[in-house]
Amino acid sequence: MSKGIISKEEDYSQWYNDLVIKADMAEYSPVRGCMIIKPYGYSIWEKMQAVLDKMFKETGHSNAYFPLFIPKSFFAKEASHVEGFAKECAVVTHYRLKNDENGNIVVDEDAKLEEELIVRPTSETIIWNTYKGWIQSYRDLPLLINQWANVVRWEMRTRLFLRTSEFLWQEGHTAHATADEAIAETEQMLEVYADFVENWLALPVIKGIKTPNERFAGALDTYCIEALMQDGKALQAGTSHFLGQNFAKAFDVKFTNRENKLDYVWATSWGVSTRLIGALIMSHSDDAGLVLPPKLAPIQVVVVPIYKHDEELENITAFVKALTKELKAKDISVKFDNRDTHRPGAKFAEYELKGVPVRVAIGSRDMQNGTVELARRDTKTKETVGQQGLADHIEKLLEDIQKNIYQKAFNFRQENTKEVNTYEEFKRLLDEEPGFLSAHWDGTPETEQRIKEETKATIRCIPLNNKLEEGKCILTGKPSTQRVMFARAY
Amino acid sequence: MSKGIISKEEDYSQWYNDLVIKADMAEYSPVRGCMIIKPYGYSIWEKMQAVLDKMFKETGHSNAYFPLFIPKSFFAKEASHVEGFAKECAVVTHYRLKNDENGNIVVDEDAKLEEELIVRPTSETIIWNTYKGWIQSYRDLPLLINQWANVVRWEMRTRLFLRTSEFLWQEGHTAHATADEAIAETEQMLEVYADFVENWLALPVIKGIKTPNERFAGALDTYCIEALMQDGKALQAGTSHFLGQNFAKAFDVKFTNRENKLDYVWATSWGVSTRLIGALIMSHSDDAGLVLPPKLAPIQVVVVPIYKHDEELENITAFVKALTKELKAKDISVKFDNRDTHRPGAKFAEYELKGVPVRVAIGSRDMQNGTVELARRDTKTKETVGQQGLADHIEKLLEDIQKNIYQKAFNFRQENTKEVNTYEEFKRLLDEEPGFLSAHWDGTPETEQRIKEETKATIRCIPLNNKLEEGKCILTGKPSTQRVMFARAY
Repeated sequence: MSKGIISKEEDYSQWYNDLVIKADMAEYSPVRGCMIIKPYGYSIWEKMQAVLDKMFKETGHSNAYFPLFIPKSFFAKEASHVEGFAKECAVVTHYRLKNDENGNIVVDEDAKLEEELIVRPTSETIIWNTYKGWIQSYRDLPLLINQWANVVRWEMRTRLFLRTSEFLWQEGHTAHATADEAIAETEQMLEVYADFVENWLALPVIKGIKTPNERFAGALDTYCIEALMQDGKALQAGTSHFLGQNFAKAFDVKFTNRENKLDYVWATSWGVSTRLIGALIMSHSDDAGLVLPPKLAPIQVVVVPIYKHDEELENITAFVKALTKELKAKDISVKFDNRDTHRPGAKFAEYELKGVPVRVAIGSRDMQNGTVELARRDTKTKETVGQQGLADHIEKLLEDIQKNIYQKAFNFRQENTKEVNTYEEFKRLLDEEPGFLSAHWDGTPETEQRIKEETKATIRCIPLNNKLEEGKCILTGKPSTQRVMFARAY
Repeated sequence: MSKGIISKEEDYSQWYNDLVIKADMAEYSPVRGCMIIKPYGYSIWEKMQAVLDKMFKETGHSNAYFPLFIPKSFFAKEASHVEGFAKECAVVTHYRLKNDENGNIVVDEDAKLEEELIVRPTSETIIWNTYKGWIQSYRDLPLLINQWANVVRWEMRTRLFLRTSEFLWQEGHTAHATADEAIAETEQMLEVYADFVENWLALPVIKGIKTPNERFAGALDTYCIEALMQDGKALQAGTSHFLGQNFAKAFDVKFTNRENKLDYVWATSWGVSTRLIGALIMSHSDDAGLVLPPKLAPIQVVVVPIYKHDEELENITAFVKALTKELKAKDISVKFDNRDTHRPGAKFAEYELKGVPVRVAIGSRDMQNGTVELARRDTKTKETVGQQGLADHIEKLLEDIQKNIYQKAFNFRQENTKEVNTYEEFKRLLDEEPGFLSAHWDGTPETEQRIKEETKATIRCIPLNNKLEEGKCILTGKPSTQRVMFARAY
């Protein structure tokens, strides 16, 4: 319970907020619902960006940049798209301030825009308007573009990283000659996201398809990855949309195909955001602070010297210098905390709070014995090990921690994913043992909506390669051919 | 004059626009003054970001992220700051759209913000408001933060990359315990920028200080680097500001110093933007297209096979594969253009247009002779060289091109920097032989302003370590102690 973080058993929501603030990840800004991402939090985002960007490029995508502002009329062109986003748009109406007669700064009414501009909540419309000029023939396809950007969705209830009015993300927007190619792209990017979240965030995901109710505004199909947080609520960690020809039709983007005929272009879009940082925090951390998977930890190893006299520190420093060199050669980041303003115990607590995966403590006796004390953040266990071969040992330990964190989250999800066959059991479990509930549903949006209203649980997804199975809808008793994955969600 | 680019002698401005468009660097968007940065242009920005980001981190800075929106009242807190930016602000006034009775999408007047939000033109105000919570004691200082972000300044006259309503940049914002430390930081970052622009963009710069008229709104001193474009106009390539205690006072950011006394914090800010891409294009390119310095070229080497039969291509391909591997090991990027839809001549023109520094052409006769044809983009010269040791040869050639491009720009600037002693000569040179004009000025804003109005030339900077020299102001004849650098500028 360092620095006054509440226990997650006591108040999960408060625990999360405390953790984000105390671990210096982010804070709220004076602008409603907008956050400030502090250097420690941002460095995790930078690591995520670097890995994802490489994955996108390896799958043939290039980055580009499109305007922040979207003319209002563009939104109206795709009916379900505007329906989905109109209620949460920041609208720019003027382009100048001025001093009024009292010397106050006011909006200059003479500088009103002819057409209002929307701060992008997502960029399909501005991008497909642009693609019209870029695509004439099948030779121009596929067009595989990604953008790293900020977007704004005016949220009424916000929570740091998970739901903020402005957030950072990447949005891929691709154009294809056939539906099959576009679907293959949609599925490929879902796999990229699943790979990233499982192998870097150490978080197991369920890959699936959204029901029509939960689809992206303007998509024919929304693929998603869903993860389970420690409080038993689900979190959508990434989405990949097959947009069909909806945006091509809205923006009149046609191409000459191989048969020399004109056809509308097929589209996908896909994105993950700074929300992933929230998922990372929620899924692994404990009452002592963050637990970061080594692959995304800004500092992987911290070394704390324990000494009384300066000559002791000199000895230790020489050793740490050599160790640091060895670790850096292995691409392992190390921080040597030799501040004389803080006691070792305070430092231990600080790095626990910040989730540093491995802590090395080294004192004068260790120097005499040729040992160090290694503590791992995930299990909070310590061991005394030899200085000989220490870098190799740490390298293996980091790999082990990465695997262990994943396995722990995997086990948690297994334990909290249950098949349910009655509505009573469904409601009871949601309240008493929340998690993923695999249940039959009659396939209608009405039933889905009623369940949502009555229980706050939504269909997170229809898992990919779902097992077909005869059954009866938990609400209506009507026949069903497969179970779908329900949960309450962030 | 590939793909119809006008000659730069004939119309420099049109030549630049043509080049940006035809080389697939960027285009205008339907949003007034906002640009779309296309993948080829964006990949240069990515390279710039990577280098600069490393330089910032090596000088102790961390990245963070602050909100896009700034409450209007924040601006008003620093008087000269709001004065400087009020006339070009995008203002968000509403947060929702709705359907009106005719089914049109309109702004929902019920969703009017209590206080308008400004889309950040720069982030001093929102950041210093935040720093108030981060800084209590000298132990919290220096605070060295950078942000990569988009900003908006509502420009009336726009030009791709050089002046757009939205642009991408980085903005450093640092806080220090003393004026001296803040000034040292300001100067350090100017040196970082000069190093980057000279050694990566291959563009020589003059380092200097702005006159009060040309200072950043809210700064005590603005340091800058100024470069000369091929049409003899200057371009400000980066600025670093010593902000004194202005923002600390406006946002009440005090700290306890080592003497246990409360004092206001000292500040700097510094930035470079996508404008640098414009500088890069303007300073090196020619009538055949871009000339990119190898260190920032997205593709450093292109290989074009020349063949009639498929088995010839097979032979060439095997050779190119081996060469590519060798070059990649040297961190040199290579593109093998084996498209059968384009003739070699068309490919040559395309890569000239795109400024690829080295072109390797290889045909069947070359394969028999163990040679290739190497063409360098900067001098447009060709040579036939042996295949043996080709990767080493190309590596040296790229270094040579980088140096040569710099030297050419350096010589151009030397030839076009002149000392002037009379106003008549000053005006004549501005029209007939534009460039940097080093002239005496009486030191008053009034004289500076009159010269600007009469000639459109501004004082670009007072060079650092400027030589002191008795003289007379070119306009007023009043005494002056040093020459300053005038030019017409972008």
